[in-house]
Amino acid sequence: MTIRWGIVTAGKISHDFVNAFNSYPNKGDQVIAAVAARTKPEEFAKLHNIPIVFDSYKALAESNEIDVAYIGALNPDHYNISKLFLENGKHVLCEKPLCLNYKQAESLIRFAKNKKLFLMEAVWSRFSPTYIAIEKEINSGKLGDVMFVEVNFGVPIVTVDRLRKKELGGSSVMDIGIYTLQFAQYIFKEEPKKVTTVGGLNEDGVDIYETIILEYDGDRRAVLNVDSRFKMWNKATVVGTNGHITIEDPFHFPEIFINTDGTVEKFPLHKSSLPYNFRNSAGLVYQALEVEKCLKEGLIESPRMSHKESLVLAKLEQTVRKQLGVYYDVDDQEFP
Amino acid sequence: MTIRWGIVTAGKISHDFVNAFNSYPNKGDQVIAAVAARTKPEEFAKLHNIPIVFDSYKALAESNEIDVAYIGALNPDHYNISKLFLENGKHVLCEKPLCLNYKQAESLIRFAKNKKLFLMEAVWSRFSPTYIAIEKEINSGKLGDVMFVEVNFGVPIVTVDRLRKKELGGSSVMDIGIYTLQFAQYIFKEEPKKVTTVGGLNEDGVDIYETIILEYDGDRRAVLNVDSRFKMWNKATVVGTNGHITIEDPFHFPEIFINTDGTVEKFPLHKSSLPYNFRNSAGLVYQALEVEKCLKEGLIESPRMSHKESLVLAKLEQTVRKQLGVYYDVDDQEFP
Repeated sequence: MTIRWGIVTAGKISHDFVNAFNSYPNKGDQVIAAVAARTKPEEFAKLHNIPIVFDSYKALAESNEIDVAYIGALNPDHYNISKLFLENGKHVLCEKPLCLNYKQAESLIRFAKNKKLFLMEAVWSRFSPTYIAIEKEINSGKLGDVMFVEVNFGVPIVTVDRLRKKELGGSSVMDIGIYTLQFAQYIFKEEPKKVTTVGGLNEDGVDIYETIILEYDGDRRAVLNVDSRFKMWNKATVVGTNGHITIEDPFHFPEIFINTDGTVEKFPLHKSSLPYNFRNSAGLVYQALEVEKCLKEGLIESPRMSHKESLVLAKLEQTVRKQLGVYYDVDDQEFP
Repeated sequence: MTIRWGIVTAGKISHDFVNAFNSYPNKGDQVIAAVAARTKPEEFAKLHNIPIVFDSYKALAESNEIDVAYIGALNPDHYNISKLFLENGKHVLCEKPLCLNYKQAESLIRFAKNKKLFLMEAVWSRFSPTYIAIEKEINSGKLGDVMFVEVNFGVPIVTVDRLRKKELGGSSVMDIGIYTLQFAQYIFKEEPKKVTTVGGLNEDGVDIYETIILEYDGDRRAVLNVDSRFKMWNKATVVGTNGHITIEDPFHFPEIFINTDGTVEKFPLHKSSLPYNFRNSAGLVYQALEVEKCLKEGLIESPRMSHKESLVLAKLEQTVRKQLGVYYDVDDQEFP
């Protein structure tokens, strides 16, 4: 069974996803079959050798040319576009954050489940070989009991529309903070019992920086420092009672971590013919491999990035936003 | 004018201070003249070649053999012992924290000022050549505007009486957290407008870990992670709009920092004949050099570690303690 991908939008992240996919040598039995974008889909298709082109998402969703859609749209469109593809019997890999808030995410996941279709939030970090290796280290017990996680993520994107405008779903926690939240959740694997946020907003009422403290049972905690104003050192550290591991920059899809004995562990990414928009985007291919695997096993969610995980992330993002006073119009709406 | 030091207590930190002093080649015109301790002062004097020995603090305070006292006692005794020496006309260098709370610190400082005697809290970090070098880097403007400071300090001392017992002035923020607070204040040089603390207590009602967020004007912040349960990576990072500096372990008296261009800057400490109890204690000599300098200039406080700075630290320590629900008996008392 060949898995046929449809790419939705011809933006920066879609470019990186397709580039990562096309340049990866062992991607198994899957192909990129089609692309749909409102503007210039032909250019994108030509650049990436994609045979079928649509200038509307609906046309792609209704076509019989694809099995699974990759949604690279802006945050406010994730819910509607994902639903459109699910309605038309397509599996969905949707960029993070899955939705704008918890109610939307819950509704979308319920819809996919009812349709018995695969749905995954594109938290590509979870499929990083480095992450899988550090999980192994932690499980080996070398660190002792893991008590503390710290993540820093600072990128100077405060003037980028996607980040700064509320109508575009702008928000630091929704754009980059999500990487720090998912890291904490990846390590602690349970819902925190308390969230404390300190941060600041821009003139559009959108959070431009924050520090988030997640408290877990057993006096364990995660401290997440997020900033869209400047570059930080962008590492993550996991501290246990017997040692600690540091994941090097960029922690959100790293090639290097420093083990507790000081050993430098390397997981280099594959080379690509085209340049990327974002750092280490070659790693985007690993989530495609996961989708292929899940679809072949008949799963409707990935065990490594489950629906429950997406719901916990949605809840945490919403809590952080509300603690800072960031509200979207959809926060007042109900979803089926 | 020779500055004659009297050492008060023969404990671990006094040992390190005297060892650092004795083994430093260029300590100028100052000597260690006497020691006072309740138990085994002779052993301490013999080990460190100190000519005069007292078995009571009062006898040392009333003697004419010293000009300045170094107070290495436990936290609850700082106020009384410092006052005893000031009453008897001696200058005082007192271990940090200066006092148990703000009222005590204010009272002690007022007392020293009235007596026109020198008083300094032994925040030895402030005299580190590494700190002075990073201050120069920051002032050069290379980092741009400094917006964020992060410090981690974790040391497995949760079972040590000094830390865990309230009657001994136990508290993580008072024992190791102070190093993180003073670092933030060293960089931002003004009082934070808001303090947010998340942490946990032991069965004696003493804080054993915390994360402290200090918010400064202009959307700047410091995040301080303190833990007495396990070792952390014990670095400090200063992030500006154009770059960042990392101070290596142990950040509280470092020998190395990583400049914003990646250059490794080294400031090695002098070698000592005797071993130390604490890391990099050789650096304790620099505060003695500062005291000598101040006394020769007729100052009653150090410009690098002023009374005002001690009061801000006392206020911050108290705020953190209160946010976590840690109370000392002296918190209910008034001081003259």
